[in-house]
Amino acid sequence: MPLPEPIGIYAVLDADTLAPDRLPGAALTMAGEGVRVFQVRGKSLSGRALLALVTAVRDALGPGPTLLVNDRVDVAALAPCDGVHLGDQDLPVAAARRLLPPGAIVGYSTHSIDEAALDHGADYIGFGPVFASTTKPSGRTPLGIEGLRQACGVAPVPVVGIGGIGLDAVAELRRAGASGIAMISALLSTPDVRPTAAAAVRGFQGTEPLDGGRS
Amino acid sequence: MPLPEPIGIYAVLDADTLAPDRLPGAALTMAGEGVRVFQVRGKSLSGRALLALVTAVRDALGPGPTLLVNDRVDVAALAPCDGVHLGDQDLPVAAARRLLPPGAIVGYSTHSIDEAALDHGADYIGFGPVFASTTKPSGRTPLGIEGLRQACGVAPVPVVGIGGIGLDAVAELRRAGASGIAMISALLSTPDVRPTAAAAVRGFQGTEPLDGGRS
Repeated sequence: MPLPEPIGIYAVLDADTLAPDRLPGAALTMAGEGVRVFQVRGKSLSGRALLALVTAVRDALGPGPTLLVNDRVDVAALAPCDGVHLGDQDLPVAAARRLLPPGAIVGYSTHSIDEAALDHGADYIGFGPVFASTTKPSGRTPLGIEGLRQACGVAPVPVVGIGGIGLDAVAELRRAGASGIAMISALLSTPDVRPTAAAAVRGFQGTEPLDGGRS
Repeated sequence: MPLPEPIGIYAVLDADTLAPDRLPGAALTMAGEGVRVFQVRGKSLSGRALLALVTAVRDALGPGPTLLVNDRVDVAALAPCDGVHLGDQDLPVAAARRLLPPGAIVGYSTHSIDEAALDHGADYIGFGPVFASTTKPSGRTPLGIEGLRQACGVAPVPVVGIGGIGLDAVAELRRAGASGIAMISALLSTPDVRPTAAAAVRGFQGTEPLDGGRS
């Protein structure tokens, strides 16, 4: 599937945060509440296990939602998914596109306003950490809501805010111009995924970007 | 380059055993002593760093030697190399071939006589651990020289013995029928790579397989 416009809640299905066998069910629950974009991340999984996990998530979700894979371009190219999300230590965007089918979605992580303003050849950029992340401590200084607002103003593609984002921040980040809002712990480390996902989607949908950022 | 016949000394350039910036020079030294097959392994490297390392090793070696990448099919498909080596937790051989150019070399790790006898679709198989490995402790019981001999007798493709192999074992493993002999620590954890590589190549070349194994 192409990337929705706006992206909305962007659920990172992190196999180091929730056990892999629970992720497909969690994804299905989130999709039922209106989440339309998912990224599978499994830094500690083998290639074979990651391929199996992406396949299981797609089986759970069906063809509608957008499904991306973190880092592993080979898995993204072979799995029933829509593309890949790359960090600055992963394979370059242009190289990844050579292995992916035409029209595949490629996202790229940025960590400063200057980086956000560049054309990385990606279909969207991640921008963060917005807040201090507990799931993926990066050692980077949080860029804050004001940083996100500036990034959305200069980025040539839609911006997904990421890093330590909880339910309480969704509406404000959307108002700051984010097309998407990545959530990991806030969605996965909760006793009941359904009301959390529903509240996140409501928080996003109930607001419109005020600042002219690309949405 | 196609796989040499026999494979001979198969040098695993492991970035967790020797610093990545020293591996290209070590590879060049080994090639000068007659090693013709190299595998770059960097389990702890990012995709971008692994791609850079494979490229640097190829730059050092030139086009002659066979150069493979461990695990990462995407890196193997994008780097100036000849193929990939896959373990049983990595992407499946047939899936990997879909991303690699025609004629790419794909190796597959086996760990029992029964596995060695199967057609995995690979161009060669690794077989081991022959001895207890210090570089890559697998938790697996060493299969020994007799195990390697049996594997060479039943395998449909050339066999590369791997796991804890030191200089002193090269000639005997070749006599047992191994087409290739993988060495990691014995080549990399030595104060001077050159005489070690030379002795390994001599140990391999000075012997012929006695037991009718595929060579």
